[in-house]
Amino acid sequence: MRPNNRPNDQLRDISLTTGVNPHAEGSCLIKFGLTEVLCTASVQEKVPQWLKNKGQGWITAEYGMLPRATADRKDREATKGKQEGRTLEIQRLVGRSLRSVCDLKAIDGLTIWLDCDVLVADGGTRTAAITGAYVALALALAELNRKKRLKGAVLRDRVAAISCGVMEHGVVLDMDYTEDSSALADANFVMAGNGDWIELQMSAEQKPISGHDFARMQEMASRGIMELFSLQARALELAS
Amino acid sequence: MRPNNRPNDQLRDISLTTGVNPHAEGSCLIKFGLTEVLCTASVQEKVPQWLKNKGQGWITAEYGMLPRATADRKDREATKGKQEGRTLEIQRLVGRSLRSVCDLKAIDGLTIWLDCDVLVADGGTRTAAITGAYVALALALAELNRKKRLKGAVLRDRVAAISCGVMEHGVVLDMDYTEDSSALADANFVMAGNGDWIELQMSAEQKPISGHDFARMQEMASRGIMELFSLQARALELAS
Amino acid sequence: MRPNNRPNDQLRDISLTTGVNPHAEGSCLIKFGLTEVLCTASVQEKVPQWLKNKGQGWITAEYGMLPRATADRKDREATKGKQEGRTLEIQRLVGRSLRSVCDLKAIDGLTIWLDCDVLVADGGTRTAAITGAYVALALALAELNRKKRLKGAVLRDRVAAISCGVMEHGVVLDMDYTEDSSALADANFVMAGNGDWIELQMSAEQKPISGHDFARMQEMASRGIMELFSLQARALELAS
Amino acid sequence: MRPNNRPNDQLRDISLTTGVNPHAEGSCLIKFGLTEVLCTASVQEKVPQWLKNKGQGWITAEYGMLPRATADRKDREATKGKQEGRTLEIQRLVGRSLRSVCDLKAIDGLTIWLDCDVLVADGGTRTAAITGAYVALALALAELNRKKRLKGAVLRDRVAAISCGVMEHGVVLDMDYTEDSSALADANFVMAGNGDWIELQMSAEQKPISGHDFARMQEMASRGIMELFSLQARALELAS
Amino acid sequence: MRPNNRPNDQLRDISLTTGVNPHAEGSCLIKFGLTEVLCTASVQEKVPQWLKNKGQGWITAEYGMLPRATADRKDREATKGKQEGRTLEIQRLVGRSLRSVCDLKAIDGLTIWLDCDVLVADGGTRTAAITGAYVALALALAELNRKKRLKGAVLRDRVAAISCGVMEHGVVLDMDYTEDSSALADANFVMAGNGDWIELQMSAEQKPISGHDFARMQEMASRGIMELFSLQARALELAS
Amino acid sequence: MRPNNRPNDQLRDISLTTGVNPHAEGSCLIKFGLTEVLCTASVQEKVPQWLKNKGQGWITAEYGMLPRATADRKDREATKGKQEGRTLEIQRLVGRSLRSVCDLKAIDGLTIWLDCDVLVADGGTRTAAITGAYVALALALAELNRKKRLKGAVLRDRVAAISCGVMEHGVVLDMDYTEDSSALADANFVMAGNGDWIELQMSAEQKPISGHDFARMQEMASRGIMELFSLQARALELAS
Repeated sequence: MRPNNRPNDQLRDISLTTGVNPHAEGSCLIKFGLTEVLCTASVQEKVPQWLKNKGQGWITAEYGMLPRATADRKDREATKGKQEGRTLEIQRLVGRSLRSVCDLKAIDGLTIWLDCDVLVADGGTRTAAITGAYVALALALAELNRKKRLKGAVLRDRVAAISCGVMEHGVVLDMDYTEDSSALADANFVMAGNGDWIELQMSAEQKPISGHDFARMQEMASRGIMELFSLQARALELAS
Repeated sequence: MRPNNRPNDQLRDISLTTGVNPHAEGSCLIKFGLTEVLCTASVQEKVPQWLKNKGQGWITAEYGMLPRATADRKDREATKGKQEGRTLEIQRLVGRSLRSVCDLKAIDGLTIWLDCDVLVADGGTRTAAITGAYVALALALAELNRKKRLKGAVLRDRVAAISCGVMEHGVVLDMDYTEDSSALADANFVMAGNGDWIELQMSAEQKPISGHDFARMQEMASRGIMELFSLQARALELAS
Repeated sequence: MRPNNRPNDQLRDISLTTGVNPHAEGSCLIKFGLTEVLCTASVQEKVPQWLKNKGQGWITAEYGMLPRATADRKDREATKGKQEGRTLEIQRLVGRSLRSVCDLKAIDGLTIWLDCDVLVADGGTRTAAITGAYVALALALAELNRKKRLKGAVLRDRVAAISCGVMEHGVVLDMDYTEDSSALADANFVMAGNGDWIELQMSAEQKPISGHDFARMQEMASRGIMELFSLQARALELAS
Repeated sequence: MRPNNRPNDQLRDISLTTGVNPHAEGSCLIKFGLTEVLCTASVQEKVPQWLKNKGQGWITAEYGMLPRATADRKDREATKGKQEGRTLEIQRLVGRSLRSVCDLKAIDGLTIWLDCDVLVADGGTRTAAITGAYVALALALAELNRKKRLKGAVLRDRVAAISCGVMEHGVVLDMDYTEDSSALADANFVMAGNGDWIELQMSAEQKPISGHDFARMQEMASRGIMELFSLQARALELAS
Repeated sequence: MRPNNRPNDQLRDISLTTGVNPHAEGSCLIKFGLTEVLCTASVQEKVPQWLKNKGQGWITAEYGMLPRATADRKDREATKGKQEGRTLEIQRLVGRSLRSVCDLKAIDGLTIWLDCDVLVADGGTRTAAITGAYVALALALAELNRKKRLKGAVLRDRVAAISCGVMEHGVVLDMDYTEDSSALADANFVMAGNGDWIELQMSAEQKPISGHDFARMQEMASRGIMELFSLQARALELAS
Repeated sequence: MRPNNRPNDQLRDISLTTGVNPHAEGSCLIKFGLTEVLCTASVQEKVPQWLKNKGQGWITAEYGMLPRATADRKDREATKGKQEGRTLEIQRLVGRSLRSVCDLKAIDGLTIWLDCDVLVADGGTRTAAITGAYVALALALAELNRKKRLKGAVLRDRVAAISCGVMEHGVVLDMDYTEDSSALADANFVMAGNGDWIELQMSAEQKPISGHDFARMQEMASRGIMELFSLQARALELAS
């Protein structure tokens, strides 16, 4: 029923490759099927103006897509002179998600930029971005730790994210672009390592959905994210 | 425990006043406690470029805040030269929410603009905007119906929205600004008249929350929105 | 001959309501017929960069219109990414007019922002803005005085403003939008309490006008503004 | 009392040179003392979108200053990415002033752009711009007439403009920059050849002024503009 | 003397990988040492407005850098709201270079976008972009040819590019970032397959250079580009 | 064969007039045939942020064209809200060219702005801008020297620039706009007084050119620039 006969609750092929950028303190190229997102973590030796002398650092994210990441070429945001609402929404989501498991006091004086750039888009770019940005961030923090630049443990837990959708034939996990386009509703789930929720976003522009269907999505997402945690752990082990 | 000893599951004082703009096809001034949002529905005799000859109309929303809507004056977006990410996020949410219960084919050739302008902000502006925009839209559609401009019924259901939060002392309904600032997590719920969900957005930047707490929020929001449906109905009756 | 048989030298129904914004140091909702402008005065504890250490404070104004303030919806300036020339012209006029009767040394260290937002436009929005901003400013200054934040008297005089036009049937006072659209020339007058002129702006795009007609406009405006001074005084008394 | 002992009612040395731009349909370099404004009139074979099929053409003006036109260098508007409020105000004034004496039906299908670029600024740039733009426009219209491109007479009258100020020592005509900086009030007058007023703008940011002083300014401006009409006429004769 | 004891006239390790983007009509990931540029060619079924009905198509290029492509993170151009002068300069160069060997009449009705996005920057990004864009373009044209969409041969010749620099120790080929930073002068050379020059750009901000040194650069560049032609040919063979 | 039977290696009539701006520290109006560029040098008593406390000053250039400088009126960059790529490219070239012969340590604490504004464009505006900006800069430096504001000699050499083109009938010097439009290739040469090259830019969008033709252009440009050096010297003598 799904492309490639993938069962409803199965993730696409997923891979995480670290160390892909020779300049960045942490980097990870993550693939969810055809989707490819290049995530880098960059350490900057200062904090935003509004955090001066507040005893804490900052973690922020930016998101972008190469013009031909999509099936049809899209105009470059730098050429149009502004970022779209969708872009701003996604990068705010990525930043909030990662900050929710960090102790910002331990990086006092530093800003960590998480850049998530989509090389190829085929659905699920924001969940890939969060999952990959976690790995890039963990690598950058390990590097800062080696240099004795941290004032304590930063990461309180892990973070990963996955999408679910409601289609005519039921609830499905990790939709590709074609599925996403015909879904009645779609949702993005961001979970911490302890199983608690960091962000839930469900949008049913086509047709409102029942509480029962939403509960089914939560359950399926929870299991998918557990698999992502394993893949993140393996990538970090290989990198160390 | 809450300001004014309001019980955890109680809405603030809410009022809806229709016909507040002499030019607009539909208008509603909605108040949630101190929060005031002026909602207008404006009918335009054309559709966006990308909907030309597609056999359907369009409904879109814009959101703004007067500079002194907030406790401290904020710079005017028109002066800064761009809308903030938060503004874009909210107006996309309002537009999607209202479109989810409309048959756009019945307004072929027309665009309806829903402008939600915050005169006073004290928490809950986006949920007030959705709830008030529904009333303005219903009035504009009634007007179009009287003029025989519709190709069928447009509204398939009602829409209203409310916020919930998780605070140290438990889950609460319809937070004001002070509560919102100290909440561990906050969520916005948009529901259709049949009890199905249109949008769910939960964000736990302070601390991830359990599935149990989220379920409690859903339940509380559901009951709060039922009350809003009654208030909307009464306002529309008075206007007719 | 005029709408509602209003005599040529008569103002529309005018009302001023104070205290309409719970956050602002001063606020006034002013109506000239259908026209409604919400004026707030906001005190900020700093001065612009170029006034640092000059021994004086600053008073500045901003003007905006809600998209459906007008008979046909206009695009939002925040969406277009810039303020129109007309908007800039009006807010510069409002700022200059109010500063002309103030001793800025007495508010050293402070900036007062006068925001004039048009909820409904039906002609005369800039003169309503000046007249209402004066009331909001006077209230904010009274508040600052109560808190002993002033270094002396700030207001040296009152300010109010009205429009006049030359129509085929003669000179008229306080035009509504329909009249304004067919006038040969229109003018805006800003007067101090002592009868001296603060700003005069006459524009005759349709047809140049004689010195005699302009003198008649000055005279009519002068009497109209006297009435506005009484209404301002009453509103301020009620607020105190 | 004035710089160079100039009497209060005397203009600075004024010169108008035509034909200074080999591409433009009409051009005039105008000097008021040190102030130099280069005015060109450019004919374009189309009308703005909103005038399509309305049976009339359009005349519009743009104003700019070279960065070092002023005593201290100012940032280039093209670099800052927007035109200042002052610039927009002036170019709207120039455009309205010239349109007020033109029959736009006679240039149906055409737009005439009046570009007024300040090479050196020493006060009075907007009045020099109006006075010089009239000459550039008249030359372009003569050229169009020779080519049989007009549908009738365009110019119904002449236009010129001058500034006046109120200083401690009385009312003065045609202020330079130093005088302008210390004036209590300043005004700009735009007059038609028949002595009627096209635009009057008086601004008294320092101190409101009496009706008597304003009448004195009108009278002095009127006589100054008569002299400008002679100088315009001579420049046009020489060019023909 | 050079990093890694590279001889003055030797290129860095260079690789070209085709087919790296599943959506694009042509794509090539090109590496010059650490520098990595992702080049895609996208076919669009229309021409720019100004080429409508002129009997020819268009080829244009855009250039961008990921924020952490550089050793220190740079602000994203999409966030800053505009492309830098350097970016515009490079993308104009890439577009002109590729157009110089194409017959645009043979792609009448089509625009081909060449997007060159720098994943890692270590000097020579513009020359890598031109060299890689040629391969992406050739692949897209082959694809169009298979679909019988061309009106004749498009490519009249090959194109590749390389940089040279003058350093204290002599003229060198293909500088990395460290070398570039200390060069007295640097130049970029774009050559056609027949050995003729398409673009030459030499800039000596540190110290003017002699005609003799420039001749030496031309000669060295010429030989380097010959090697690039071989590598391009091999990559295209492997892709076919 | 060329317009006015000008020999291939002959410059157009060239004139340089100094002191044309009463405010600027240095100014020069330069004409190459019909082309006219107004160059001013403005001294500012501070350095850019990134040069604070680096022991050196800065020299930078800006370039602009009046809207009707060209045969067809072009939109004003200030109105469009941004500078074109061509403009940025030219002003970067002018700035680099002049800096290449200056000792910036000798103007520590100062920025010199070179504004090159094109009053009339007929080909060669960038080379006229460089040649004229040198004169304006030399005058401003002489003025600073008189005021004892320099920490040593600033100018190490002279700078001037000229264009060459390859046309069907051969290589030509100093093309006007008509020639430029039909050239197969065009190049701009910036030379120091000692005959060394500061910038070389050759672009062959129409057809790649041989090394032989490029050598011929270098030679012809070299001789043309020698003549410009004489004209600069004479203008500076007259001004002293």
